[in-house]
Amino acid sequence: MTIIASSIIAREHLAGTAGAVQGINPATGEVLEPVFTFVDENAVDQAAEAAWAAFDTYRATSPEARAAFLELIARNIEQDGERIISRAVQESGLPLGRLTGELGRTANQLRLFAGELRLGAHQEVRINAAQPNRTPAPAPDMRQRQIPLGPVAVFGASNFPLAFSTAGGDTASALAAGCPVIVKAHNAHPGTASLVGQAVSAAVKEAGLPAGVFSQVFGAGSAVGQHLVAHPRIKAVGFTGSQGAGLALMRTAAARPEPIPVYAEMSSINPVVVFPSALSAGMTALATGFVGSLTMGSGQFCTNPGLVFVPANDQGFAAAAGAALQELNGQTMLTPGICESYRQGVSRLAGTPGVSAVSEGQEVAGKNAPAPVLFQTDTATLRSTPDLQEEIFGSAALLVRYNDAADLASALESLQGQLTASVQANDEDAEAARSILPILERKVGRILFNGWPTGVEVNDTIVHGGPFPATSDSRTTSVGSLAIYRFQRPVSYQNVPAALLPEALQDANPWSLPRRIDGALNA
Amino acid sequence: MTIIASSIIAREHLAGTAGAVQGINPATGEVLEPVFTFVDENAVDQAAEAAWAAFDTYRATSPEARAAFLELIARNIEQDGERIISRAVQESGLPLGRLTGELGRTANQLRLFAGELRLGAHQEVRINAAQPNRTPAPAPDMRQRQIPLGPVAVFGASNFPLAFSTAGGDTASALAAGCPVIVKAHNAHPGTASLVGQAVSAAVKEAGLPAGVFSQVFGAGSAVGQHLVAHPRIKAVGFTGSQGAGLALMRTAAARPEPIPVYAEMSSINPVVVFPSALSAGMTALATGFVGSLTMGSGQFCTNPGLVFVPANDQGFAAAAGAALQELNGQTMLTPGICESYRQGVSRLAGTPGVSAVSEGQEVAGKNAPAPVLFQTDTATLRSTPDLQEEIFGSAALLVRYNDAADLASALESLQGQLTASVQANDEDAEAARSILPILERKVGRILFNGWPTGVEVNDTIVHGGPFPATSDSRTTSVGSLAIYRFQRPVSYQNVPAALLPEALQDANPWSLPRRIDGALNA
Repeated sequence: MTIIASSIIAREHLAGTAGAVQGINPATGEVLEPVFTFVDENAVDQAAEAAWAAFDTYRATSPEARAAFLELIARNIEQDGERIISRAVQESGLPLGRLTGELGRTANQLRLFAGELRLGAHQEVRINAAQPNRTPAPAPDMRQRQIPLGPVAVFGASNFPLAFSTAGGDTASALAAGCPVIVKAHNAHPGTASLVGQAVSAAVKEAGLPAGVFSQVFGAGSAVGQHLVAHPRIKAVGFTGSQGAGLALMRTAAARPEPIPVYAEMSSINPVVVFPSALSAGMTALATGFVGSLTMGSGQFCTNPGLVFVPANDQGFAAAAGAALQELNGQTMLTPGICESYRQGVSRLAGTPGVSAVSEGQEVAGKNAPAPVLFQTDTATLRSTPDLQEEIFGSAALLVRYNDAADLASALESLQGQLTASVQANDEDAEAARSILPILERKVGRILFNGWPTGVEVNDTIVHGGPFPATSDSRTTSVGSLAIYRFQRPVSYQNVPAALLPEALQDANPWSLPRRIDGALNA
Repeated sequence: MTIIASSIIAREHLAGTAGAVQGINPATGEVLEPVFTFVDENAVDQAAEAAWAAFDTYRATSPEARAAFLELIARNIEQDGERIISRAVQESGLPLGRLTGELGRTANQLRLFAGELRLGAHQEVRINAAQPNRTPAPAPDMRQRQIPLGPVAVFGASNFPLAFSTAGGDTASALAAGCPVIVKAHNAHPGTASLVGQAVSAAVKEAGLPAGVFSQVFGAGSAVGQHLVAHPRIKAVGFTGSQGAGLALMRTAAARPEPIPVYAEMSSINPVVVFPSALSAGMTALATGFVGSLTMGSGQFCTNPGLVFVPANDQGFAAAAGAALQELNGQTMLTPGICESYRQGVSRLAGTPGVSAVSEGQEVAGKNAPAPVLFQTDTATLRSTPDLQEEIFGSAALLVRYNDAADLASALESLQGQLTASVQANDEDAEAARSILPILERKVGRILFNGWPTGVEVNDTIVHGGPFPATSDSRTTSVGSLAIYRFQRPVSYQNVPAALLPEALQDANPWSLPRRIDGALNA
């Protein structure tokens, strides 16, 4: 495929007149061809009506048909992988190796949901047989399944041009659930979005599905993005990005005549707790591991470790991490704007009373590659300075020195919701670690031991989510097979004649779904 | 137990000075003793802090311990059943038989969740074993379970003083999930709330649980109710009541620094579709069944059938239903205010252009027992008059005459979200019924055939929920075992040492939970 510089509305390419954008190579400043035109609200209306028209047909497809469709998307992306990766490198400044891995992850994510469809547990089929002889009144035949919510709006993310964008986790899980998808392409990687959008669109055709199952629009977020979320045909929203943009979408969704769920993954500083015994036993490895996690991909991960709790008397970890960081060159950030926000965040942190610099790396001039930085403070300052919990997107971290178990617990209690919390502990730290686990459970979506939060497995057990403001809805995840639950709701069928029951609920169980029958699982 | 006319804050009775209320017997106008004093925001703060203090201890209880606690509540309610029912009759005007049944339902609902806890499927345990030899990188040991959200605010409902109030479905499901509960008692049945609240509070003590697991406050909804929903320690809200009150709670919850989920069940007119063949085959029984469902409990059910689609040429059904209705006396409504709202709604409906009266029953003077009413209109009027979709709480219904399948489908598409849709169809109507099923699925939470929507089974398969404005969140139900999912969220545990894993995730599976291990169910 070649890049086609326009929106895709239900398999039709549509140029617009509401502005334009070009990709920019953040490592060189080069403005990339072609020019992508922006569509207006009318195009969003078209996409939304097409999605609505496709909905009943699409949601009636069998698990196997939908799984095969997701696999076609994965295959199409892989077949065009070289071109997609090469364009994504230009548009994002991310290294080839990283994007090669991300493309594989994106394809495997689609296949994970194909597997989920074939397993069918998410359909949550429950059957209670009629009890004609129950007293005082007979019990009806009752059955329950989950049905998809309706067309979903997905917002591509800048930091994962593949895994969280056009055919990323939100799109994969919504399509798996049976929801048509309209993607608002991220303007930082329009060429990548175009290529991947075509891969999805081709799969729609190959699978024989209605054209409205997938659309992708280029436009200004404040115009077409908001219009999309406000559109009556849209029934849920998936978003990964800044807290400001996420909150704006939440407000729009809540103000609709019919409010809809917004799944916004927004900001997290991913606390790490280092316990004394683990620290003495492995100080150098811990410092190296931390700096590697902090600076990987220029720190542009949702799970980047931005806050590290170390014992107050530590000198070694701060010194070793500082020394390792000092050696490092900055890496190109995704866009000049993101780089500028990073600089402002670092400057704000540097000017915060009670915060002092530990170390910084080397800026690489002219490449939007600012220096990674490490600061330190104490728990009292952390507790009294809510601004210290604002995410600085990039390779910036804050060491927080804690005095004792009570001081650590109190500092952890002061934290907002997070995606992850990491614990560095060995056997001798076990009781101290045990005492903070209930706090961490209340604060985060994923707790990990003796590792670093970057590096997100895509499987049945991941939770990439957490309490506000990490996400807008802690009841779910945006990565992993559980994400399909975001786009479903239960429906009950009472005394519906056998001939009219949907396949999922028929006695013969033609889709071989796991079922709860009269209270027994998989009966 | 005797009625204690004060709030219960973590097992302590607390009188207030922020106003007062007394029960009123709507059938007689008698003002009932004693006087219940209202507490202020400080008491809410106390209850919320006590709930928070209890949360970690309570959520760590075993499924068996929590099940036994729910069973104690059920037993305490049944032991005091005679007094509770007698007081509820006085405060609600509902008949003894109805409230006797409702008390049994309330106790059985608590036992349903005890069963859910022992089954354990809602903990959604998933385990992915470590893969130390995976390339390019080893896979960590990962486990996932659901944990409770935190303290829950529950608003008692006027129309079910037992099953949707102090120890009703919201309380039962939140306690089952591991969430402490603070009930805002409904001021229409303060004595009933007091007795049931004491039954719960006694169970907290008998089960040896922290006192903050349960509190109940008396106060003005606009003051303590709003304060409760805005309180930072409250993490979710359960509500059944009017659309206006539900929307106000949704706004408050969305405007918090940390937005929280609100499960508000608000309004539904529960469409019924009568197909021609079913109508000719059983016209009299249909008309009788409809009028029975419409007028039962003075029509004060969330699932009351307020909209009935009949073939345009029907004369028999309207005539038979009208004749049956005309015979009926009005029944006492829950409060004088509800009765007055009903009268206003009927008056608005009577004055709507295109709507004509079919029949009305007999008002019973001086007993807040207004006449049940039946109106009729056509689909064009329904489509062009959104006000016709506003619920009139009580025994008022609107027949809508449809011309053909397309006209019916178009009218159904014009409906807002509903709790239920009922279909009266026999074998000859099967294809017509099939054609509207996808529409009904998109509009409602429960579809039932050849029955009436009043009469809600409390089991694994019920959905008492539906798209907005029937509820604020279609992804769940407020009745049945699935309701426990409202108060949970997933947490992932990565490489957490075996000794620190919660019981639910331990290899030995001490709680015998169903599990998904490496993708296989119940492995």
